[in-house]
Amino acid sequence: MPKLDLDSIPQTNATGYPPEFADKVQERWYRALAPAAGLKDFGVSHVELKPGAWSSQRHWHEGEDEFVVLVEGEAVLVDDSGRTALRPGDCAAFPKGDGNGHVLVNESEESCVFIAVGKPAASDCHYSDIDMHLEEGRGFRRKDGSGF
Amino acid sequence: MPKLDLDSIPQTNATGYPPEFADKVQERWYRALAPAAGLKDFGVSHVELKPGAWSSQRHWHEGEDEFVVLVEGEAVLVDDSGRTALRPGDCAAFPKGDGNGHVLVNESEESCVFIAVGKPAASDCHYSDIDMHLEEGRGFRRKDGSGF
Repeated sequence: MPKLDLDSIPQTNATGYPPEFADKVQERWYRALAPAAGLKDFGVSHVELKPGAWSSQRHWHEGEDEFVVLVEGEAVLVDDSGRTALRPGDCAAFPKGDGNGHVLVNESEESCVFIAVGKPAASDCHYSDIDMHLEEGRGFRRKDGSGF
Repeated sequence: MPKLDLDSIPQTNATGYPPEFADKVQERWYRALAPAAGLKDFGVSHVELKPGAWSSQRHWHEGEDEFVVLVEGEAVLVDDSGRTALRPGDCAAFPKGDGNGHVLVNESEESCVFIAVGKPAASDCHYSDIDMHLEEGRGFRRKDGSGF
C-alpha cells in the first residue's frame, strides 16, 4: 500500500557532524523515506525539529538541488537574505551551486515537521557560519583542509 | 530568497490526455515548481485538486518513481489494494515499475493540496482502468497501439 506508515519507519537523530557542531541538530529527528518506500530516483526525508533544533548547519551544496515543504508547525528559514517564516504548505528551494547558505530553525515551542527532497550529498558542501567544509570524497574538514 | 512565492508561479489545468479521458483532471490545478525555482535534479509540482478532481487517471510508471505529501485538505488514494484516506502530513510513494496503479481523488467539498515529486514521464505509463497507454516516444495510444 503506497501510503507510508511513518511510525513504522525508524526515526534517528544521527549526524556525521563533528561534536563541536552537532549540538544544533541533536533534536533533529528524521526518517529516510526513500529507501523505506523503494524509491531510487531521489531522496526524501521526513524531518521533525523539536523546539530549538536546526535542520543542519547553514550550508549550500555545489552539486545537489534541495527542496523542502513545511507540513506542521512553524520554522524560520535563515539564508543570506535574512529570516523568513515558514508555515504549513510553504515551500523553499535551494538550487545547487547557488552559494546561498540556508538552514531551517525551529524557534517555536512546538515541534515542526517538513519533507526534504534531494540526493545524497556527494559534492562539496559549504558551511556559511562555521569552520567546516564537506569535501568530496574526504568528509568533513576545517576550511584550511585539516581534519577534526 | 529560497521561499517560493507560490502565487507568482503560473497555475494551469493543462493536460495531454485525449478529451474523452480529460474530464477527471479539468479541476486539477498545478504549478511546476522545479523550473520556477531553478531545480534540475527532480521535478516538483504543487497540485490543487478542486472538489471532485482527480490527480490523474489511475496509472503506474515503468521508469519513474513518484512521491506525494498532502499539505492541505483531504484526498482518497485509490490503488490496487483499495481506498486510503490521506490527511495533511500523510505521505505516499509509488516506486517505478511496481505495477500498482494509483490516483488521488478529492471526494471532499473543499480543495486539497499536495506536493508531488518525480521526473518527467519518459518511459511507458500504464493506465489501470481505461483504454489508454503512454508509449515511450509515441505519446498516448489505445492499448492496441492505435491512436486517438
